[in-house]
Amino acid sequence: MTNQPISGNDLARFSGPQTFMRLPEAQDPAGLDAALIGVPMDIGTSWRSGTRFGPKQIREQSAMIRPYNVQTGAAPFDGLNLADLGDVAINTFSLSETIRIVENSYDRILRHPLIPLTLGGDHTLTLPVLRAVAKVHGPVALVHVDAHADINDEMFGMRECHGTVFRRAREEGLVDPRKTWQIGLRGTGYSADDFREAAGWGFHIRQAQQLWHQSLKPLAAEIREQIGDAPVYISFDIDSLDPAFAPGTGTPEIAGLTTPQAMELIRGLHGLTIVGCDLVEVSPPYDMAGTTALTAANLMFEMLSILPGVPFR
Amino acid sequence: MTNQPISGNDLARFSGPQTFMRLPEAQDPAGLDAALIGVPMDIGTSWRSGTRFGPKQIREQSAMIRPYNVQTGAAPFDGLNLADLGDVAINTFSLSETIRIVENSYDRILRHPLIPLTLGGDHTLTLPVLRAVAKVHGPVALVHVDAHADINDEMFGMRECHGTVFRRAREEGLVDPRKTWQIGLRGTGYSADDFREAAGWGFHIRQAQQLWHQSLKPLAAEIREQIGDAPVYISFDIDSLDPAFAPGTGTPEIAGLTTPQAMELIRGLHGLTIVGCDLVEVSPPYDMAGTTALTAANLMFEMLSILPGVPFR
Amino acid sequence: MTNQPISGNDLARFSGPQTFMRLPEAQDPAGLDAALIGVPMDIGTSWRSGTRFGPKQIREQSAMIRPYNVQTGAAPFDGLNLADLGDVAINTFSLSETIRIVENSYDRILRHPLIPLTLGGDHTLTLPVLRAVAKVHGPVALVHVDAHADINDEMFGMRECHGTVFRRAREEGLVDPRKTWQIGLRGTGYSADDFREAAGWGFHIRQAQQLWHQSLKPLAAEIREQIGDAPVYISFDIDSLDPAFAPGTGTPEIAGLTTPQAMELIRGLHGLTIVGCDLVEVSPPYDMAGTTALTAANLMFEMLSILPGVPFR
Amino acid sequence: MTNQPISGNDLARFSGPQTFMRLPEAQDPAGLDAALIGVPMDIGTSWRSGTRFGPKQIREQSAMIRPYNVQTGAAPFDGLNLADLGDVAINTFSLSETIRIVENSYDRILRHPLIPLTLGGDHTLTLPVLRAVAKVHGPVALVHVDAHADINDEMFGMRECHGTVFRRAREEGLVDPRKTWQIGLRGTGYSADDFREAAGWGFHIRQAQQLWHQSLKPLAAEIREQIGDAPVYISFDIDSLDPAFAPGTGTPEIAGLTTPQAMELIRGLHGLTIVGCDLVEVSPPYDMAGTTALTAANLMFEMLSILPGVPFR
Amino acid sequence: MTNQPISGNDLARFSGPQTFMRLPEAQDPAGLDAALIGVPMDIGTSWRSGTRFGPKQIREQSAMIRPYNVQTGAAPFDGLNLADLGDVAINTFSLSETIRIVENSYDRILRHPLIPLTLGGDHTLTLPVLRAVAKVHGPVALVHVDAHADINDEMFGMRECHGTVFRRAREEGLVDPRKTWQIGLRGTGYSADDFREAAGWGFHIRQAQQLWHQSLKPLAAEIREQIGDAPVYISFDIDSLDPAFAPGTGTPEIAGLTTPQAMELIRGLHGLTIVGCDLVEVSPPYDMAGTTALTAANLMFEMLSILPGVPFR
Amino acid sequence: MTNQPISGNDLARFSGPQTFMRLPEAQDPAGLDAALIGVPMDIGTSWRSGTRFGPKQIREQSAMIRPYNVQTGAAPFDGLNLADLGDVAINTFSLSETIRIVENSYDRILRHPLIPLTLGGDHTLTLPVLRAVAKVHGPVALVHVDAHADINDEMFGMRECHGTVFRRAREEGLVDPRKTWQIGLRGTGYSADDFREAAGWGFHIRQAQQLWHQSLKPLAAEIREQIGDAPVYISFDIDSLDPAFAPGTGTPEIAGLTTPQAMELIRGLHGLTIVGCDLVEVSPPYDMAGTTALTAANLMFEMLSILPGVPFR
Repeated sequence: MTNQPISGNDLARFSGPQTFMRLPEAQDPAGLDAALIGVPMDIGTSWRSGTRFGPKQIREQSAMIRPYNVQTGAAPFDGLNLADLGDVAINTFSLSETIRIVENSYDRILRHPLIPLTLGGDHTLTLPVLRAVAKVHGPVALVHVDAHADINDEMFGMRECHGTVFRRAREEGLVDPRKTWQIGLRGTGYSADDFREAAGWGFHIRQAQQLWHQSLKPLAAEIREQIGDAPVYISFDIDSLDPAFAPGTGTPEIAGLTTPQAMELIRGLHGLTIVGCDLVEVSPPYDMAGTTALTAANLMFEMLSILPGVPFR
Repeated sequence: MTNQPISGNDLARFSGPQTFMRLPEAQDPAGLDAALIGVPMDIGTSWRSGTRFGPKQIREQSAMIRPYNVQTGAAPFDGLNLADLGDVAINTFSLSETIRIVENSYDRILRHPLIPLTLGGDHTLTLPVLRAVAKVHGPVALVHVDAHADINDEMFGMRECHGTVFRRAREEGLVDPRKTWQIGLRGTGYSADDFREAAGWGFHIRQAQQLWHQSLKPLAAEIREQIGDAPVYISFDIDSLDPAFAPGTGTPEIAGLTTPQAMELIRGLHGLTIVGCDLVEVSPPYDMAGTTALTAANLMFEMLSILPGVPFR
Repeated sequence: MTNQPISGNDLARFSGPQTFMRLPEAQDPAGLDAALIGVPMDIGTSWRSGTRFGPKQIREQSAMIRPYNVQTGAAPFDGLNLADLGDVAINTFSLSETIRIVENSYDRILRHPLIPLTLGGDHTLTLPVLRAVAKVHGPVALVHVDAHADINDEMFGMRECHGTVFRRAREEGLVDPRKTWQIGLRGTGYSADDFREAAGWGFHIRQAQQLWHQSLKPLAAEIREQIGDAPVYISFDIDSLDPAFAPGTGTPEIAGLTTPQAMELIRGLHGLTIVGCDLVEVSPPYDMAGTTALTAANLMFEMLSILPGVPFR
Repeated sequence: MTNQPISGNDLARFSGPQTFMRLPEAQDPAGLDAALIGVPMDIGTSWRSGTRFGPKQIREQSAMIRPYNVQTGAAPFDGLNLADLGDVAINTFSLSETIRIVENSYDRILRHPLIPLTLGGDHTLTLPVLRAVAKVHGPVALVHVDAHADINDEMFGMRECHGTVFRRAREEGLVDPRKTWQIGLRGTGYSADDFREAAGWGFHIRQAQQLWHQSLKPLAAEIREQIGDAPVYISFDIDSLDPAFAPGTGTPEIAGLTTPQAMELIRGLHGLTIVGCDLVEVSPPYDMAGTTALTAANLMFEMLSILPGVPFR
Repeated sequence: MTNQPISGNDLARFSGPQTFMRLPEAQDPAGLDAALIGVPMDIGTSWRSGTRFGPKQIREQSAMIRPYNVQTGAAPFDGLNLADLGDVAINTFSLSETIRIVENSYDRILRHPLIPLTLGGDHTLTLPVLRAVAKVHGPVALVHVDAHADINDEMFGMRECHGTVFRRAREEGLVDPRKTWQIGLRGTGYSADDFREAAGWGFHIRQAQQLWHQSLKPLAAEIREQIGDAPVYISFDIDSLDPAFAPGTGTPEIAGLTTPQAMELIRGLHGLTIVGCDLVEVSPPYDMAGTTALTAANLMFEMLSILPGVPFR
Repeated sequence: MTNQPISGNDLARFSGPQTFMRLPEAQDPAGLDAALIGVPMDIGTSWRSGTRFGPKQIREQSAMIRPYNVQTGAAPFDGLNLADLGDVAINTFSLSETIRIVENSYDRILRHPLIPLTLGGDHTLTLPVLRAVAKVHGPVALVHVDAHADINDEMFGMRECHGTVFRRAREEGLVDPRKTWQIGLRGTGYSADDFREAAGWGFHIRQAQQLWHQSLKPLAAEIREQIGDAPVYISFDIDSLDPAFAPGTGTPEIAGLTTPQAMELIRGLHGLTIVGCDLVEVSPPYDMAGTTALTAANLMFEMLSILPGVPFR
């Protein structure tokens, strides 16, 4: 039988282990279909820090989530064996060293045929994760939900930090640019090239302002159709959401997505060959009532609910 | 002449008595058309506590509300005599004893022909209130706005707590299941029966996801038509709203209703024979800027504005 | 060459001067096309105070804004010479004296042909600013975005405070009532005249409830057409927004505008002859995560992006 | 029988009226020996505002206090008849008008032979209160506990605000300078005269640094002896305490008194002919955990415990 | 070899399992010398709730603690085998049922010869723990550090809640009254008997006011001498500390102990035959900066450092 | 004439530039006797981050400080010419690069004969500052006030971070170990060598527990005598203070110094040849009421008040 979260009927929700959804913690990835992994870092952030406590607070808030997705019928724990692998032992004093450690850790984990579900941590982590994922799956399709394109060439001379991830990913052939979607972009910038250049690479850009006041179901359908059978990675930056829904993040931008839109988007991607997901940039010191982490936990559960092999009932 | 709230032109809003809208406090329900009553409890909650301070903070924020509903034309204090009856003297160490006390208190109050407007407190309180209401009015139509169906059979062996209220209410014949609406349901669960069983009883379920991106005026019209002349009770759980609008609650669920939707719904119920209302689950320790309590106070004022007998000008 | 904000690529965003967008601070308005000016007052507020720290916190959050408006193509610093003139030296112990000081300060500043962009501070400040503006431009068209009409005749016997501004402005001929728009009004009141009287003067009223669930582009187009070439002043009270988006304000009202609506409205006013703007009523003690001030800073940047003379690229 | 607070054994502490210690509220001072009065103002403050909510939050926290002073044996409600007279209806838009209103209100109240116990509000209120008190009792002895001497001649040209109170009081003959004690003074200033001038008037100055690490019992004994039978007014500014004990205030100064010192001081004044007390400068927006207001409520109870006529058992 | 906490040199402190000091979690008490146990309850509280999250937050803050007590030389993990047994599965809807569950759980745990170290949770938990402890050790000596005596006969008719623990413990012969110390008592009460009655039973009372401004080493020495070889239980209520040091608690009382005093007291008890310890009443919603939980975690480590068998180096 | 802070009598304290004490900002160190410099970094922290906002918040709170030290008679601005040089342009993505930048910046600044007063920022910054200082003055005497010795050899393989500063400083001959004092040390550790090794180098260690309950005047006198005429650097880590006084820091330790002790210590060092000071580790996200930054600002003013050349009046 597969691992099950501790039920709120067996142990009060404010009690029990601090794993994602109170799943069993595991040291060994063997036998798992998918696994939660924390990457508690904030040294790649450029404005407010604090994301080092993101994995911890997302796990804490995930205690509220029950195992069945009533709204969609997904029953992930019926079909998949999951566990929480804990945190990667990053080096908080060195960004470059941490990037190396994350890649190595994921290389080891991905010797097993599981889907990594990463809890961040700042967005820098997606680069080494994609490196490890691409070694297994080749260039992947990418659904990148974010307020920021993260395609700077460098920041303060650094080529690897939370603002350069997707330029690097494309340069290194980790993603298929024709199957890369960037959704929710907005905020201010430096030049008209900020989005145009990536469009030139083949990236599909959907600025937040193009999505205001509407359902994202059509967008999800379009993505699903164009990506087809390719392996897909979903990188969900919590700052894609409007600060009303997710104040607890480091570089908030106003006028973003709503949580209904986020749920429509993720649910609409059901059927894709997902090979990895992450949820990044939750910064607890700015999340006074815990709702940002709660949102992050629920969005991770929604991604979990569309993984290949999840039964519906 | 009817009781009037203290005007912000006579006494600065941050001053004066801590009653709802700074109405007179009354000990005796005689002569009142409707009355505010606090039930300051949180011992029926399953995740975050703190709702024991809900009535106090809703009253504090209600000092901002002026007596005339400019948006609808309702002038409740022109036609109805209202007062704040203070709090029920609950027993904070015993949930079962508190349930008994609330029922007894409402029995006493409802010897007078008034409409009770309850400020919570956790949702458990609705069960004893409905018991008292049903003694007077028989099984009532119910408009239940909430993220959760609250129809568990038991929680930790307890048959009466904030998650079992509406199963009990139906079992005991306190509500008319064919005239019961549950609006805003969402979150995660344990099985597909979570909502289906209640639908089988006749409950009308409107999940939040069915309501995203749209006005609730049509829904309100539908409810109004189907309920007709039956006596109606409105139970409004603040967690029906999205946490962006109401972070200060114990069991928040993402992707909920917006406040415009809540106002459209309540205003659209004007004309029904309302016999009682409650506003529950405001938890001040998680309501840093007071906006949840402010929302609760305003929604109570909106319910007040549609009571039978309220004049419009 | 025009003044430029310090780039986040040259100096980390959490560093540097505390001016708006880290623009140069100036003592002398000579040579400026537009200028930021703080009016740090809260003694005109009627419920929660704290807006005296508004200018400071808006400036702090503005460090996140980059110089190019990617979403619209506006490049304000390419064409206009801006600086931050610091704060008006108000007298925090006297509202009437402060009103006099603000008017005098703006009289001096407006000897130079610049557009004043004011950071508040409570809404009282708009009255003396309009007095100074009207001396230069005559009665101006007004786009007033707010939860409240602010057209009381007096409050506690005072004719000049944050609730009486626009009655005074009309009485004194500072605004053209036929070209005055009040957008986002809501909340509760005292009588049906609350909005009708102003309509009688010619004010165009758009209550928030008329705007729920829809784009404000059509409204902006209508305003633009009707105002035509007249000089326009924009007064943006942050409480026009829903408290979900802007909790940090003194007199919040539920069910307000969204930030996408606010951006659509401002962007849609591009082409008007704007002669002044203000952003008022940000109250930092109630803005725990800083998102209200961030929103205010961004909305000021949007207003800056539509000033006459701003190039687009 | 005298008025009694509602017992925590009869009604849960988080419930009940929002009066001081849940005493009865009274409109009429007749028959009272002492009375609580709120003066909810902050327009006399020079740094952080928010004290307008002070009376409300002190009352809320006072619900924790039980009627018997176990530590000293005082049983104030056995011997004195007390009530809460609510708030003075100040004019929040005008400092000078508010000062006039407070004086008039106290004149009316002091036609009755009661001891006024004032909950602030900023320290400006002490000036009109002393004016009313001096009309009844002549110049009073003064025990002024504060971080600041509040003896400026003017601030921004204003002769009456929270920084000028005690210079005015001395000029107007409201206090007996030879029997005036200023305790806890510290912080920074403008010249060596800051304290010397008042010493020249006869004021007894005890800077905080003279009191570090020691009991205040000897100081209290000294004061008691020197004041003898004169009528005494106690003005307690919460910022006399160290910010560790009282963060929620507008102009905090580090290295202040401790709460044990405050209690020793007040208890040591037992036996004096106290004719009035105030507790001022509690600013709730900066009092996150409510401990400042709790401290204020307890210190007011300690002052209440030493009033003439209080029995000990 | 004994269990060791994860070192901050191996895994960043904001990472890793959420056990006390990041010790291994254990299901089985066999082989342990002492064990951490959480009792996450708040339904026995009378003012502010929230202690249900106490165990979780104490564990989170304990990640800062390193294994060696530099100040005393104690090296508890050199000599004792410890683990974190997780939380007791309490019933959050029933206080009486929870009391029964706690007693049963401790009965099971204490079949093994280990020292239970309990993380609370409200103080009610000490009663069932003492019942289980007394079954093993007979009546124990008690060092009870608290602002409140907790010797009410009943509260709201309940004989078992957080205010009645030590009267029950004495009645049931769980403690030896001649070897019972209550330290830090203060606050207000109902009659002079509040402390006298317990003194009559033999309890040694040390009110906080007797301890102000002094070291607690002499007191600790006195206790140690009088208790001698008897088995001792230490019950440490965090509200014994002044709210400056521990704001995050449900019933704070001003003018309490300092943390240096708390450490002197605990360290001075080294040598006693300690058979159990608890640390209760940490309420995270009121502990904004986490310092209360940090203090609790450190005090538990200090108690751990004086357990029988701990080596010093 | 020397630079003067803007007076609170000329411009309201919540207004004006965001420099230390509202001094003029300068680009050029020429002509200054001492200068404030911010180093806004947190990438060297091991537990909670956020110190990158430290300089900004210390400056904000410093607006409360007036120019004359009433308590000691020091009038620093009468004799010294000071300015705020703004922030060092650190690289927030690289700790090693930031260390290099800080050293270079201070080398440039120290070509002028001024005393650098550094606002942190995490404690790592002291290493490059000492490197620059030692190039000018040779090995300096050191007064290091801190909860932690910061003498690890490495952390996660890094030899330069906030826990290794003073081992490096000694190895590199930046300080004279015989004239080095470490004051306030406490917390937990790994072995008995934690403090002994440094003692062996000649460091004078004063653990916090040796200083509880007493004045630090004698300690200051002892230090002053032993240091004599040597050039002295003061490094003040705000976590030396107890978390009751300074909650807003990254690695708080309970039972620390009090602010009166801190002031006695600094004032007692008057007369030494101070060549540099820093105040580090203020973390605003954990400083809810701003009191930590206020304390830091005041302690920096106290250090400023004892600089060579400061007149007393």
